[in-house]
Amino acid sequence: MWSAGVLGATGYTGAVLLSILSGHPDIRISLVTSNTHRGKRISDVFPLFRDRLETRLEATDEDHRSKCDVYFLCLPHGTAAAKAEGLFDGRALIVDLSADFRFEDPALYERHYGAHRAKELQAHAVYGLPEIHREELKAAKLIGNPGCYPTSAILPLFPLLRQGLADGGVFIDSKSGVSGAGREARMGNLFCEVAEGFRAYNVGVHRHEPEIQKEVSKVAEVKITFVPHLLPMNRGILTTVYGSLKKYVATEELLHTFRETYRGSPFVRILDEGMYPDTRFVRHSNYCDIGLKTFEDGRFILISAIDNLVKGASGQAVQNMNIALGLDEAKGLGLLPQYP
Amino acid sequence: MWSAGVLGATGYTGAVLLSILSGHPDIRISLVTSNTHRGKRISDVFPLFRDRLETRLEATDEDHRSKCDVYFLCLPHGTAAAKAEGLFDGRALIVDLSADFRFEDPALYERHYGAHRAKELQAHAVYGLPEIHREELKAAKLIGNPGCYPTSAILPLFPLLRQGLADGGVFIDSKSGVSGAGREARMGNLFCEVAEGFRAYNVGVHRHEPEIQKEVSKVAEVKITFVPHLLPMNRGILTTVYGSLKKYVATEELLHTFRETYRGSPFVRILDEGMYPDTRFVRHSNYCDIGLKTFEDGRFILISAIDNLVKGASGQAVQNMNIALGLDEAKGLGLLPQYP
Amino acid sequence: MWSAGVLGATGYTGAVLLSILSGHPDIRISLVTSNTHRGKRISDVFPLFRDRLETRLEATDEDHRSKCDVYFLCLPHGTAAAKAEGLFDGRALIVDLSADFRFEDPALYERHYGAHRAKELQAHAVYGLPEIHREELKAAKLIGNPGCYPTSAILPLFPLLRQGLADGGVFIDSKSGVSGAGREARMGNLFCEVAEGFRAYNVGVHRHEPEIQKEVSKVAEVKITFVPHLLPMNRGILTTVYGSLKKYVATEELLHTFRETYRGSPFVRILDEGMYPDTRFVRHSNYCDIGLKTFEDGRFILISAIDNLVKGASGQAVQNMNIALGLDEAKGLGLLPQYP
Amino acid sequence: MWSAGVLGATGYTGAVLLSILSGHPDIRISLVTSNTHRGKRISDVFPLFRDRLETRLEATDEDHRSKCDVYFLCLPHGTAAAKAEGLFDGRALIVDLSADFRFEDPALYERHYGAHRAKELQAHAVYGLPEIHREELKAAKLIGNPGCYPTSAILPLFPLLRQGLADGGVFIDSKSGVSGAGREARMGNLFCEVAEGFRAYNVGVHRHEPEIQKEVSKVAEVKITFVPHLLPMNRGILTTVYGSLKKYVATEELLHTFRETYRGSPFVRILDEGMYPDTRFVRHSNYCDIGLKTFEDGRFILISAIDNLVKGASGQAVQNMNIALGLDEAKGLGLLPQYP
Repeated sequence: MWSAGVLGATGYTGAVLLSILSGHPDIRISLVTSNTHRGKRISDVFPLFRDRLETRLEATDEDHRSKCDVYFLCLPHGTAAAKAEGLFDGRALIVDLSADFRFEDPALYERHYGAHRAKELQAHAVYGLPEIHREELKAAKLIGNPGCYPTSAILPLFPLLRQGLADGGVFIDSKSGVSGAGREARMGNLFCEVAEGFRAYNVGVHRHEPEIQKEVSKVAEVKITFVPHLLPMNRGILTTVYGSLKKYVATEELLHTFRETYRGSPFVRILDEGMYPDTRFVRHSNYCDIGLKTFEDGRFILISAIDNLVKGASGQAVQNMNIALGLDEAKGLGLLPQYP
Repeated sequence: MWSAGVLGATGYTGAVLLSILSGHPDIRISLVTSNTHRGKRISDVFPLFRDRLETRLEATDEDHRSKCDVYFLCLPHGTAAAKAEGLFDGRALIVDLSADFRFEDPALYERHYGAHRAKELQAHAVYGLPEIHREELKAAKLIGNPGCYPTSAILPLFPLLRQGLADGGVFIDSKSGVSGAGREARMGNLFCEVAEGFRAYNVGVHRHEPEIQKEVSKVAEVKITFVPHLLPMNRGILTTVYGSLKKYVATEELLHTFRETYRGSPFVRILDEGMYPDTRFVRHSNYCDIGLKTFEDGRFILISAIDNLVKGASGQAVQNMNIALGLDEAKGLGLLPQYP
Repeated sequence: MWSAGVLGATGYTGAVLLSILSGHPDIRISLVTSNTHRGKRISDVFPLFRDRLETRLEATDEDHRSKCDVYFLCLPHGTAAAKAEGLFDGRALIVDLSADFRFEDPALYERHYGAHRAKELQAHAVYGLPEIHREELKAAKLIGNPGCYPTSAILPLFPLLRQGLADGGVFIDSKSGVSGAGREARMGNLFCEVAEGFRAYNVGVHRHEPEIQKEVSKVAEVKITFVPHLLPMNRGILTTVYGSLKKYVATEELLHTFRETYRGSPFVRILDEGMYPDTRFVRHSNYCDIGLKTFEDGRFILISAIDNLVKGASGQAVQNMNIALGLDEAKGLGLLPQYP
Repeated sequence: MWSAGVLGATGYTGAVLLSILSGHPDIRISLVTSNTHRGKRISDVFPLFRDRLETRLEATDEDHRSKCDVYFLCLPHGTAAAKAEGLFDGRALIVDLSADFRFEDPALYERHYGAHRAKELQAHAVYGLPEIHREELKAAKLIGNPGCYPTSAILPLFPLLRQGLADGGVFIDSKSGVSGAGREARMGNLFCEVAEGFRAYNVGVHRHEPEIQKEVSKVAEVKITFVPHLLPMNRGILTTVYGSLKKYVATEELLHTFRETYRGSPFVRILDEGMYPDTRFVRHSNYCDIGLKTFEDGRFILISAIDNLVKGASGQAVQNMNIALGLDEAKGLGLLPQYP
């Protein structure tokens, strides 16, 4: 039994993380924090937890060293790095859900997020995409949990790029539910500004683009174009990737490559030929579903679906924790997709 | 370990029931049926089950006697009764999710649903609202699982009516998500006929009204008025009940009565004074949340929230099964509400 | 041709009002204001107006006396009264969409909204529900435009109450789309806090309750109970009213009374027996649709539907303006409901 | 004053078309038909029209020759062609909203839609995209109204392709609201199958792909890839197009080319640099908003937004009618986008 702390527990990733952890057989939630809501019970903030999780919130800003075996940081960029620096001791495991430890290259981080507040820690961090970095994660004490869009884009691209199949750049068209924007009172996320509407945003300037780019560049020289869009729904990301193959590979053959690549990865499901993902069928689960199609002239289409708050955030964080603690990767993550 | 069969598994209640049962530690799903989709795997119909539940669908119309310890009937009214008649042997447990065994009085059933196809079985049936009929359910072999609206209306009314507190009739204003209408291709349930709209339907003629009426009449002489409305969302029922008290009881005092009534009922949560239910905080769980307010002139307002497919259907069915099998009532039903 | 000014134009009522006024044949929009967005064009704030309405926003706080024939105040409670005081000169027409001039009784206003900032003006104000106060509106120079919920509740209640048909109190169960909450960045109105959820709010303490109560009390002694609920959709209010008749009146007969009452009111549509309103069929129009049902034991159900931003706010404001300017009441309001 | 008939008036395009035509100053609706609902009034089928349009539906299958100056065919593919053959006399104007007259090449039509039922008429048909074919439309008596996706894809592609700027193929990622699927009771369009979900469909096999391909091939040799997706909302299409320029053109310069191309086209709005379309700001209007961005390495992104039922269907049909009748192209189409 490990004790876990969730710092910054009153956002959407916090809510989902607590929900998953509270059902994890090897975890005891011993610490939840929030500066805004300190003193309240977590069930006062999220009434869903009534009768189930009544832990009182402590201030995030207090010193929480040596209290937990695992710390999850659901804090804003920058704040997370500073907090991690205080907590890191080489023994406790830190899983950071912010962007602060996603970039191996400090300069790249700083170009997109500003000055890093714990540079010396970056060398300790492992990028927490288990399907690709499982081995490194086993020894990790500091994990940079990937962004939701990067998770949805890298997983379908990886098998294809690693085989050197892509010719030229790829175009990544992503669509996300609103919960990806977090639980802050901003006009753009009001119900009436989102419902019955659809738009692209941060076209060509979204900070997940360099994260995807740096990760895919590890396996192939490829220029990506990334456009995120805002879906009028709570949860889910569907990513459609377009590009051209160096030489034609039949759909079924490419699917086979994908299945081989993700053999042993319990949360990636490669669909059959002619089937494509639907966010409804991964919702509230840790799955990433992938479908694809190729054309004889070499064009390809890859489509992936994840729940942005689970495989795109809190579920993946627990998956990373499991690996780093030496547990079964899927422990506590047996959540079935919820439909309808 | 009990073996369970789900007959008529390809509707929404079937999907949710399979989802719950597949996580139940004492249940093995040994039979799923569908006349329409016979021969397919359940994961072909509901891709969410891919890699998790790949059972092949058998025809509902075949003879399934002696195959299972528990049968869940997710079949249309009428068909369910006929099927139950074939399966009932006093040993296997039958939980019927249709209306066929909800009425003790055959004449009342027939007035609203037409001729009953297994009249002699009605005497064996227990109305499966565990919070009220727990004792009878312990010995039941045939359970009539309540309607979703009745569950949402009876649970808040029961403590008040049983104490003889209501003066005159009560008005029940219910609002349900669309999944309550089932998974049939009907124009009225098309996305464009529901989204961005709200309407009452079956005003004064909904078949759940006699079901509520007969049940509340067991504890008080009270005339109910029931109006259902269709919410532009998937899941959840919120019911608001209006009426007058015989004599004023303060909100807190009435809340106390409610808490006492439901002490020992793990799925009813009585909220604190000034708090009211939100379907978001019960979604995907088996909870019924209840809040209320009284006024010094005797008026009262009761509000309840359930997930219509869980506490209003499949979750309650499993709760009933647990009781009838002698298991912990909450087994396999630890589902936390999913938010956002 | 009259010149019109919209003060506080960058909220939802402002957007809808500008949209209606820009199509009104006798109105020229000569002034739009916003303190926050001063200097921008209205089409910068609301891109929908691009190529159509490019007026620059002036500061609301400036002196706008004698600039317009009609002023619409889309300002917060309190601010509106102060602004009206500056603008009122007995010549220009002021239509205030806040609550500041809805209450004839200053004490009642102050009990619910705090100190009134232009008490001496209250005597000049007419409550702008044209179907009931049409005659007084003809001479009005200051109009208190009704709240959205009161419009939806009073219109169905009025014919019944005026005939003295109600026995005892009435229960008003209202459900509103989110746009009624305005265009302010508040957490409770975030997409993820509303979508796929439904809840009551301000139970027994909503400020529209005294507004409804004071208005219905003019025609009958009746105690109302009012519970508003938040619908996961943009626009529309459906109100369901429950009560008992002093003596039974058949549905068709009561419908006849309603039709007689609203003969000459172009925006009230009384539905046929067995038909009930749907917010979809009034959306984006100035209609109030009403359906009803009575039972032989005297119970009645009234149901109304409006678009909260049109008949519940900006459309009604223009209707009031038309009457006060001596124009055809329906001028510029020919908007058909938009479906789907 | 021209008399207009709408054949097959009880679908979504019919509803929107009647709504537009009923506000058109030069049009009188003299005929509405439906085989299913013959004998009913249109306001019985669409209660929104109550008090506004009470025309009785005649059977579509009757002979309607010489009754109208303009016929709009809102009929299924195949049926439309057969009907057009009966009505075509070289005098009356026929605007067909089906696919039957969108293809100049009969073989191409038949490859995707099956045998054509009025081949000899195809030579008379003009493809009704006014921004591109305005001149030919002036003399047209038979207009093939474009598909909704093609409208959203061709308008942003046209200025770029006509200048020969595209290098290699283009990838068209389209997302549509559900009303594009029509008003038929199909399971896939049920609320619960769409809400809170997002998916691609007809990947690589949608019949709008050859329509887009044949139209863009008129101005450039370019291979398109088209993937449609289903948005959980009623109305709107957003299309994102990706590709590479032969040589770099700055965003502002390309925007200038777009503005020049569509000078004189009242319904195309080219947004400023850094602005991108949102379906909310064209909803219920006939506008097509276009934004774009180029990168120094030659990649480009084009984004367009339309209301699929207006510019993508019925609004465009009226625009085409206006042109063919010699009226102002924008007559009766002054509809402002409706927000929120």
